Amino acid sequence: MLGSDELTVVVNTADDDRFYGLHVSPDLDTVMYTLAGVSNVEMGWGLASESFRTLERLKEYGVDAWFNLGDLDLATHLYRTKMLDEGKTLSEVCQQLAKSLGVAHKILPATDGSIKTMLETQDGTMSFQEYFVKNRCEPIIKSIDFDGSPNCTVTPEVRQAILNMDLLVFCPSNPFVSLAPILSVPGIKEMIETFSGKSIGVSPIVGGEAIKGPAAKMLKELGYDVSSVGVARQYVGLCNTFIIDQKDVALKEEIEALGMDVFVTQTIMETDQDKKQLAEYILEISA
Amino acid sequence: MLGSDELTVVVNTADDDRFYGLHVSPDLDTVMYTLAGVSNVEMGWGLASESFRTLERLKEYGVDAWFNLGDLDLATHLYRTKMLDEGKTLSEVCQQLAKSLGVAHKILPATDGSIKTMLETQDGTMSFQEYFVKNRCEPIIKSIDFDGSPNCTVTPEVRQAILNMDLLVFCPSNPFVSLAPILSVPGIKEMIETFSGKSIGVSPIVGGEAIKGPAAKMLKELGYDVSSVGVARQYVGLCNTFIIDQKDVALKEEIEALGMDVFVTQTIMETDQDKKQLAEYILEISA
Repeated sequence: MLGSDELTVVVNTADDDRFYGLHVSPDLDTVMYTLAGVSNVEMGWGLASESFRTLERLKEYGVDAWFNLGDLDLATHLYRTKMLDEGKTLSEVCQQLAKSLGVAHKILPATDGSIKTMLETQDGTMSFQEYFVKNRCEPIIKSIDFDGSPNCTVTPEVRQAILNMDLLVFCPSNPFVSLAPILSVPGIKEMIETFSGKSIGVSPIVGGEAIKGPAAKMLKELGYDVSSVGVARQYVGLCNTFIIDQKDVALKEEIEALGMDVFVTQTIMETDQDKKQLAEYILEISA
Repeated sequence: MLGSDELTVVVNTADDDRFYGLHVSPDLDTVMYTLAGVSNVEMGWGLASESFRTLERLKEYGVDAWFNLGDLDLATHLYRTKMLDEGKTLSEVCQQLAKSLGVAHKILPATDGSIKTMLETQDGTMSFQEYFVKNRCEPIIKSIDFDGSPNCTVTPEVRQAILNMDLLVFCPSNPFVSLAPILSVPGIKEMIETFSGKSIGVSPIVGGEAIKGPAAKMLKELGYDVSSVGVARQYVGLCNTFIIDQKDVALKEEIEALGMDVFVTQTIMETDQDKKQLAEYILEISA
């Protein structure tokens, strides 16, 4: 819908980690595989037509292989790890991988530095992937930190993208573990706060429930309203426009009172048609 | 045939290398997979029922993936690399892998140090795997070096194995790139030279040809007789006994003149029965 020079995706890298010695970038890969049209729709992550022979064998060697990586996916991580170890930046590796997969849109890691989402829970401190995959989002969250973010810097590519943008969209992502880590990179939040154009947030909460993932659970445990209002409050000063689902039309005024223009549409994306429709709606209201 | 406390295999590690960022130990794995009964008989290397999905994908990322590693095999290299990077020795990793695969016999790397077979050829200097796999043994060899071997030390396990042994067998391997690198580790050659028991070499050359691999070509290019005599000369002072094939019975006296007892039998091993028969013969003449 948008040409490669019309869309730039800035991606969270705070869930990057080394698994089996390999540098894995879960969010960057999901965005890349999706834009390349090779993502695994059934699994909801990873590559289509995937197999897991290497991981099965690693388990036979006694490795606690709780983080599942497919045989095709492993090539991405082998490639990335080797390039990083040779001194390339994550941005450079990302660009090279995307190019090989035929993705022309810019996919930019928020930073080339090391940043890590750490959740303090009632069961101890853990990374997001440990919380999400290993512990199936069960631990109760007390607080969230982004280790290393004060030492990170925004990349020249992200800086340029923000300076050049006409429209900023906060995807309907988890505000605490997907968007906040990006905003924690010094410089990014300040640049967005001074952005004079339209900055649109899309609520990931519909009818008091997260469309997917632990966003609702996190809102509750961190003491916020489990609603689009609770999400909108996270984006005050960053978004001047907010999109909520038809089911939440009753919350419109409460969010407007936060100083945002509020639009109401269908936000639940089940089909490609739904996705396209929401994207068109966003472009329409931003025109 | 020999119990786990009756056979120790000391293995060449000078062809170890990092491929795609992973530490690969070709000879250790061949010995381990063979003793575990999981080696790929058709390919002559690697694991049975192997697939190559990760490597195929790496090629799509533009990697010059000339060194073929299977999806199952990759688990071995991922495991080894991670353990080494965490500070384990190659001996420790090897023991752990062998244990997981149900191999009780001792498989010992000749050294935990870094040693690398480098071939000076008319096409430039290259590692053995570059020569063997990438260049299909075509370059003409001028000389062979074992980079790093002066800085290597014999492991306590290998030292103990040599001190305790009743019988030493030099397998019918390539004298220049399989056995010489082991002998280049400071201390090993001296210990073998003073060994008072039977030390049996088995010729890898039959009728002027190598049973497999580039041994004959190397003998010729390095200026030696392309015969069992040429091989036996490499082992003077190390082997007091030498086994040649029936086809080479005419060379018996010439090798005896080097100061070795010479035995003649069928040395070409095509079937498991052939292997068993040669092993039984060796045990018989050493009794």
